[in-house]
Amino acid sequence: MTPPGRTPPIFTSPADAALAFYQAFEARDVDAMMAAWAEDEDIVCVHPGGTRLVGYDAVRAGWEQLFASDARLAFRLDQVVMIETVGLAMQSAVEHVTLGTDGSQRGAAICTNVFLRTPSGWRMVMHHASPAPVQVASEAKGPLH
Amino acid sequence: MTPPGRTPPIFTSPADAALAFYQAFEARDVDAMMAAWAEDEDIVCVHPGGTRLVGYDAVRAGWEQLFASDARLAFRLDQVVMIETVGLAMQSAVEHVTLGTDGSQRGAAICTNVFLRTPSGWRMVMHHASPAPVQVASEAKGPLH
Repeated sequence: MTPPGRTPPIFTSPADAALAFYQAFEARDVDAMMAAWAEDEDIVCVHPGGTRLVGYDAVRAGWEQLFASDARLAFRLDQVVMIETVGLAMQSAVEHVTLGTDGSQRGAAICTNVFLRTPSGWRMVMHHASPAPVQVASEAKGPLH
Repeated sequence: MTPPGRTPPIFTSPADAALAFYQAFEARDVDAMMAAWAEDEDIVCVHPGGTRLVGYDAVRAGWEQLFASDARLAFRLDQVVMIETVGLAMQSAVEHVTLGTDGSQRGAAICTNVFLRTPSGWRMVMHHASPAPVQVASEAKGPLH
């Protein structure tokens, strides 16, 4: 699935694959995005509020559809939990998303990412993102007195 | 965290731990539920539409709150994808949920479950569930002609 002249990258850690995923997301680069995923029929992608996409072709089509819009997103991961074993790794985080160049529109999602060590290095096999509930302002700020 | 007289179970596969999780969920048994989880500060639980709970105490408190209501739920997993390695396993599925004894209220969630092989057997380290979008009836039924 790599276009001619582009060598598929080898990610030597789950963190490298995660970085490539979010860089491709921000760049809206479908080929770079799919290079972060395993070429497998068992990969699963769930965009916030969207249907569950299973398999390489469905996952790729989902990104193509998402990147077709003009929306430019920027991500910052917060409260990251990473569990790594020799063959599989899980990353859980809060995704803080900024929309547009002026950064005026913001949102948050809860995400679970899973990475598999394949013969071609670490690749994503699961991205599950769902809208984070809106925090009550008084909870975040604490009591006034 | 196991009450006196109850031996903590050893789950010999991710599937066994998953079964224990859903049986405890249906039985609304907090102790059985937490016996399916790793006793770890890195466990994460996301109920549909809820905040992200991190750590054993927060995850347990979330189940206690959920089980305090009278709602009796029954689960059927559909379109299951399981990726297993020697140390970590991922389960992705659509959860069909039935509420109440007459089964009149139904809903669906998309879930990601992750299991870790610990010295005490396989245990859950992540449950991420989010509401499944409502399917358009014509898609499910197909054309009449």
